[in-house]
Amino acid sequence: MKKKNIIDKLINREVIYQQGISIDCVVFGFHDRTLKILLNKFNFFHKWMLPLGFIEKDENMDDAAYRILKKKTGLDNIYLYQFHAFGNTLRSKSQEQRDILSKMGIDDGEHWLAQRFVSIGYYALVEYSKVNIKTNAGEELRWFNINEIPSLYSDHNSIIEKALSVIRSQMRIIPAGYKLLPEKFPLSELRIIYETILGRELDRRNFQRKILASGYLIKLDEIHRKTGRKPATLFSFDKEKCDKALQSII
Amino acid sequence: MKKKNIIDKLINREVIYQQGISIDCVVFGFHDRTLKILLNKFNFFHKWMLPLGFIEKDENMDDAAYRILKKKTGLDNIYLYQFHAFGNTLRSKSQEQRDILSKMGIDDGEHWLAQRFVSIGYYALVEYSKVNIKTNAGEELRWFNINEIPSLYSDHNSIIEKALSVIRSQMRIIPAGYKLLPEKFPLSELRIIYETILGRELDRRNFQRKILASGYLIKLDEIHRKTGRKPATLFSFDKEKCDKALQSII
Repeated sequence: MKKKNIIDKLINREVIYQQGISIDCVVFGFHDRTLKILLNKFNFFHKWMLPLGFIEKDENMDDAAYRILKKKTGLDNIYLYQFHAFGNTLRSKSQEQRDILSKMGIDDGEHWLAQRFVSIGYYALVEYSKVNIKTNAGEELRWFNINEIPSLYSDHNSIIEKALSVIRSQMRIIPAGYKLLPEKFPLSELRIIYETILGRELDRRNFQRKILASGYLIKLDEIHRKTGRKPATLFSFDKEKCDKALQSII
Repeated sequence: MKKKNIIDKLINREVIYQQGISIDCVVFGFHDRTLKILLNKFNFFHKWMLPLGFIEKDENMDDAAYRILKKKTGLDNIYLYQFHAFGNTLRSKSQEQRDILSKMGIDDGEHWLAQRFVSIGYYALVEYSKVNIKTNAGEELRWFNINEIPSLYSDHNSIIEKALSVIRSQMRIIPAGYKLLPEKFPLSELRIIYETILGRELDRRNFQRKILASGYLIKLDEIHRKTGRKPATLFSFDKEKCDKALQSII
């Protein structure tokens, strides 16, 4: 049986969804020593975009974000943080928006999808290996290296920038990498996450000294051996401490 | 000439405003050694609320927040920070909401003000002495000591709590009190702001040592003399440093 096309599903949902508000999700994952972002593409339109969705009329906004991401990643209990609301009028008055609507067969300026949208940005930190990407017919979902993000639909590139900037400021409170890395990891992988988010290389020894002094890591009695790499001690996060720090930003 | 009543102004503004989104403002001021919040009350309803407003259809969301606060405080260039979006369905389904609508003479469940609203929370830090409170007929605006906030309309008490929690986490990056205190101030006033936001007393000497070590303050060659108080050295913020820190959270 053919899955129902995502657009057919969406187009008549005015009765279900709250008008004028969308949710844009910046989903971070870490794999193959690279920080990645999950992007979405619809066959009918040439640009990639952030996974997005809408809020049902009777649904709490946070629940909507969990529902949208569960549908795309298969994950429950994802770590989500609402980081900013985007309400610039330029978002909804571009030639690009007219193009995408026209490709969806929407010519009526009064159609609910043709209205101005304020978007609530959530970022998600997921364990890459646990994600089970799910798509509807007519769409694609793919991980992109964060340094290879293409030009995205609407203001989605700047939404990613804003998410990174919020995470950068939160790094003073909670170590980056928590919720992203697997249970056990070599320190070099955590350093790569820091380097990627900060956009600059870090001195290996300085990083090690500072991050261990922060007290958020536990040194394990295990060695990581991988072909082509030096054996490395494994670490894990002190969950109790990290969760307490997370509480202070929620 | 009688000023037009605020409710008459609002009630037929469906054509002007973006539907389903409001802006709630938590305005902080410091006066008489007390942290204060600006609250709004309409004659027709018994509860105080946060100053709020709506976004014009062609208006950027941030501009709407500036416009709303300029109207109430007379201030341009106010320091505003968008801190959270509130999207719980309970916000708009309460007996209280039915009451306030009924007092406004709105019985039609389809009226734009009777719909569900997602609210974008902005906090503002203002210099108390520069505020020039402006009201429409039928409304009142008043500063409340932060420890004497009454039970407010809807979820407005918890919106204040959330603003405080965001400011607490930002205190690791930018000193509290910046934009709130006048040009020159004794250290004890800054300590009071810290104590109020943290909800606990601080040791005077420890506070002094830490805050001076942070490098955000400049010690002035001036003494503050006020009847009934010990003479005290005056300080000011290092604006360049503080603005740079602010940039990192914007």
